[in-house]
Amino acid sequence: MTAHDDRGPWSRSGLVKNGVSSREIPGLYVSEDHSIEECVKHLEGITKPTYSHEEIFGQYCHLGEYIHVPVEVAFEYAANVYSLEEWTFSLRSLHHIGGGLYKGKEFLAKDTSIYVRAEAYPDSRVVDYPCAWDQGDELWMRYHFRFVDARPTIRKPGTIVLWTNVKHPYYDRATEELPDYISKPRARTDRAWVGDIWPHFDAIHKIEIANLKAILEHRYSKL
Amino acid sequence: MTAHDDRGPWSRSGLVKNGVSSREIPGLYVSEDHSIEECVKHLEGITKPTYSHEEIFGQYCHLGEYIHVPVEVAFEYAANVYSLEEWTFSLRSLHHIGGGLYKGKEFLAKDTSIYVRAEAYPDSRVVDYPCAWDQGDELWMRYHFRFVDARPTIRKPGTIVLWTNVKHPYYDRATEELPDYISKPRARTDRAWVGDIWPHFDAIHKIEIANLKAILEHRYSKL
Repeated sequence: MTAHDDRGPWSRSGLVKNGVSSREIPGLYVSEDHSIEECVKHLEGITKPTYSHEEIFGQYCHLGEYIHVPVEVAFEYAANVYSLEEWTFSLRSLHHIGGGLYKGKEFLAKDTSIYVRAEAYPDSRVVDYPCAWDQGDELWMRYHFRFVDARPTIRKPGTIVLWTNVKHPYYDRATEELPDYISKPRARTDRAWVGDIWPHFDAIHKIEIANLKAILEHRYSKL
Repeated sequence: MTAHDDRGPWSRSGLVKNGVSSREIPGLYVSEDHSIEECVKHLEGITKPTYSHEEIFGQYCHLGEYIHVPVEVAFEYAANVYSLEEWTFSLRSLHHIGGGLYKGKEFLAKDTSIYVRAEAYPDSRVVDYPCAWDQGDELWMRYHFRFVDARPTIRKPGTIVLWTNVKHPYYDRATEELPDYISKPRARTDRAWVGDIWPHFDAIHKIEIANLKAILEHRYSKL
């Protein structure tokens, strides 16, 4: 079959290996070294019956939800930055301040501005919202969305929306060596810091993804 | 500020609402109706100290991992279908059978073929691997990857890789009304069905994402 390897869109010779076969790399767990029975036993050892909140949501906050509207509808809606004024709990009063950057109000905290972009990729149906409280120089709060056709994925019409946030060190009050534009607003005593809410990100985003689902499904079913 | 609304890349008037204001849609949880204090109390009610395996991994299997290589390196590698022969536990001997579809061997089960595509989107750095055991007519096992620059995301050089699988009904032995090309191979008694492993998908994919990280970091550090 070697003769066929380079005929498709990819080729084995195109893999950048820097002269190192994967078999020489320590620490891999692969079928060349472990039988099916061994592997299954290993998987059973890794899988746990229960997990702490910190284990699951400590560094990543992943969500997935089914929405009964066509994927093009869901993507088009979320790609528009103004949709955030409807489906988020508290991001409101957006206006464009230039270069695709928007400034709005964050009603989850007292006297707090939020700066946000909506970066949309129609081919993969990705929408990123890089954002930050208080300033627009470094958009370190980053919401990553993907809209996937539910038909091939779960055999139903509609959309699967995937959403991940990653915990940037600025969320954490223990992080030192900060730029002034983070340390000063983080030190405010008249409000919570956004990172204080990190342990509740799954909860707040579950509320918001439910808002997104309700809005899209309600409007679509009215057609 | 209304005068500014339509000057950026997005516009409020471009939101498709089908004549329905979001305020008319029942069931939303938004800051117009709930104070910060109320919201925080609600979040505390939703957040749990521990979660069962089924709660977290029942319908979705989400992973995230940091890899200390530039995001272009990680994306380029994973976009090449032949990388699967190195970092997966058991997908081997791929060859192109036409139209971008590859056939290989799945060594996690006896006498089992796997069919797979690698669909790569360079602008968003998404890689999807739609695949299936036994046949290539319906690629219902779907692996969704995203490669994100770690610098703006966690303030470190490198890559964050996000990976989600969604539980298609074919994984489940209880699903009825199946096409023959699923029901017949599912009924084989000389091997497990891929869906029997669904409860261990987090474990097997943790192993595989660790393989991916080890391979990329080892080769990159050799440069």
